[in-house]
Amino acid sequence: MRSVEWQENALSLIDQRELPWQLTRISLTTYEETAAAITNMAVRGAPAIGAAAAFGMVLAANQFDTTDITTLRQQLTDAGSHLKQSRPTAVNLMWAVDRMLKLVDDPAFDDADSLRKMLLVEAQHIADEDVVTNKTMGKHGAALIRDGDTILHHCNTGALATVDYGTALGVIRTAHEQGTQFHVLLDETRPRLQGARLSAWELMQLGASFDIIPDTAAGHYMSRGEITLVLFGADRIAANGDVANKIGSYQIAVLARENGIPCYSVAPTSTVDLSLATGAEIPIEERDPDEVRAPFGNPIVPDDYPARNPAFDVTPHRYLSGIITEKGIVLPPFDENLSRAILGKEPDA
Amino acid sequence: MRSVEWQENALSLIDQRELPWQLTRISLTTYEETAAAITNMAVRGAPAIGAAAAFGMVLAANQFDTTDITTLRQQLTDAGSHLKQSRPTAVNLMWAVDRMLKLVDDPAFDDADSLRKMLLVEAQHIADEDVVTNKTMGKHGAALIRDGDTILHHCNTGALATVDYGTALGVIRTAHEQGTQFHVLLDETRPRLQGARLSAWELMQLGASFDIIPDTAAGHYMSRGEITLVLFGADRIAANGDVANKIGSYQIAVLARENGIPCYSVAPTSTVDLSLATGAEIPIEERDPDEVRAPFGNPIVPDDYPARNPAFDVTPHRYLSGIITEKGIVLPPFDENLSRAILGKEPDA
Repeated sequence: MRSVEWQENALSLIDQRELPWQLTRISLTTYEETAAAITNMAVRGAPAIGAAAAFGMVLAANQFDTTDITTLRQQLTDAGSHLKQSRPTAVNLMWAVDRMLKLVDDPAFDDADSLRKMLLVEAQHIADEDVVTNKTMGKHGAALIRDGDTILHHCNTGALATVDYGTALGVIRTAHEQGTQFHVLLDETRPRLQGARLSAWELMQLGASFDIIPDTAAGHYMSRGEITLVLFGADRIAANGDVANKIGSYQIAVLARENGIPCYSVAPTSTVDLSLATGAEIPIEERDPDEVRAPFGNPIVPDDYPARNPAFDVTPHRYLSGIITEKGIVLPPFDENLSRAILGKEPDA
Repeated sequence: MRSVEWQENALSLIDQRELPWQLTRISLTTYEETAAAITNMAVRGAPAIGAAAAFGMVLAANQFDTTDITTLRQQLTDAGSHLKQSRPTAVNLMWAVDRMLKLVDDPAFDDADSLRKMLLVEAQHIADEDVVTNKTMGKHGAALIRDGDTILHHCNTGALATVDYGTALGVIRTAHEQGTQFHVLLDETRPRLQGARLSAWELMQLGASFDIIPDTAAGHYMSRGEITLVLFGADRIAANGDVANKIGSYQIAVLARENGIPCYSVAPTSTVDLSLATGAEIPIEERDPDEVRAPFGNPIVPDDYPARNPAFDVTPHRYLSGIITEKGIVLPPFDENLSRAILGKEPDA
């Protein structure tokens, strides 16, 4: 069962807000519902929201019943803009919508119904490719995991955060399936607790060995020599290898380097945004402070207490040992090696 | 109103588990109840539990109705052992009980009732001294705070964590009372959320400017240049200046140094344990994982999900700019300067 899939002319998603308590799916029939599900984090994880937005474009094409191709193209361009605004940081969302819009603008499709059919084919491609990509990353990354390792993992990067299988948690899953014996410490990942709720739920299904820890304890276990590898995902990677990822990733990368522990970001190359020179240019989403004040509706402080809730941070590339992609493990210098991995050539001088 | 005080032959405490929702006091009449209140964190904060344990010794003296001084001394020694075991990391607890036991063993008091009276006087001394000490630390530390600063603070170190006024939060309070204009970012401090619940409540009372942030966001704000000073308390300080404090302190100290931000621990000299050469010898309490799984009774994951819950960590002295004590700001090299501040002489060679 995929986290994001097309079922009976609708977009079917696992509602990630309900886990680990219940595994429920929601079915969306409009692109506006899709954008709302991305904003309210019913679906989350950079690759998952990319695929969801691609299917959102299919829903939009079905909502607009015009037979005029020019009108349909304009309507789909507007729907794409709406979807892109649902969350600002993860670039896979923009990447997937742009890939769908490339088809919309392709003069080869000159009637509306052909375009509608091709959009569904393309969204299915994006979803299928994501699974293949993740399994490939899993194989590349699993080579880094040895018997006896204890891996620190942040947020959720598993099957739930993707169409299926996962990025950083996919690497862990591959190593587990290969029979490597290791333990995982899962940062709970406040405020939305994706590590405690979602990654723990996934590792329970796999039967992998883990403990949930508060985010405050990650450095403690590193300083005691209890962590041998750090893995997390990415929501956007700049051309120089700076990685925007879930808030708290920067901290554990700094602590890993301070303690001599290898630290890798795991992400498909669709997460790399070569248009941005450095991570300083990546927009950081600031979410509702109620997510801090009242996690999942349980208030920890009164609602007039001031709070801030940045959803992502930027890890400068110098703290990363490498970036695990479907094209292999990209090592420093990232500015050269990311371009080479993606474009097959050196970056422009 | 003090957090810890003697009222009508009983120990009166603010029940810190009920804040910020309600300000309630509990009244304890036995040393066993006192030990339980320390273990279950109705009272917490190194100086507060020291004072509470001192009054616990007074309660013990009143519980044992013997007139035989030798019997009473033995009973009080046993009660002291019981109290010392209520929490393992903060040394102020041991320091306060040992100070009471010194009186118990003093041959100058040769009848039971005199000893009982002197124990109450001594516990009151400990409590009163704590307030004076905190205000003195506040003055020393406030000199470091300038208009426009943004201070990162971890856990709760305020009036609630002490008899009154606070240690690190006492420094912040002094600067606020002096009219310095600054902002405070309060780490929420999972798992027990002392920053969000208790420090925020205290700063609301003071009318100081603050925001609660998830522990995951501290490094983000440092990397953006938004934090100019880091302050936290201490539960035990080794002779070389290594500081055991609430879990998460080590992380922010490393991040502060990485970002060139001054970082100070604020603690009375009763927190220094010269018998321990380094922080590696400080016992770290591991608490019930239910505090991680179900904060204040609200489960975030099922109770069979494995979790770990270390209550403290150790910050190696090299990450600290100084230690703010009632005897002044102790600067590196801490091994020499802590001994000099406490003993008034150089450490033994």
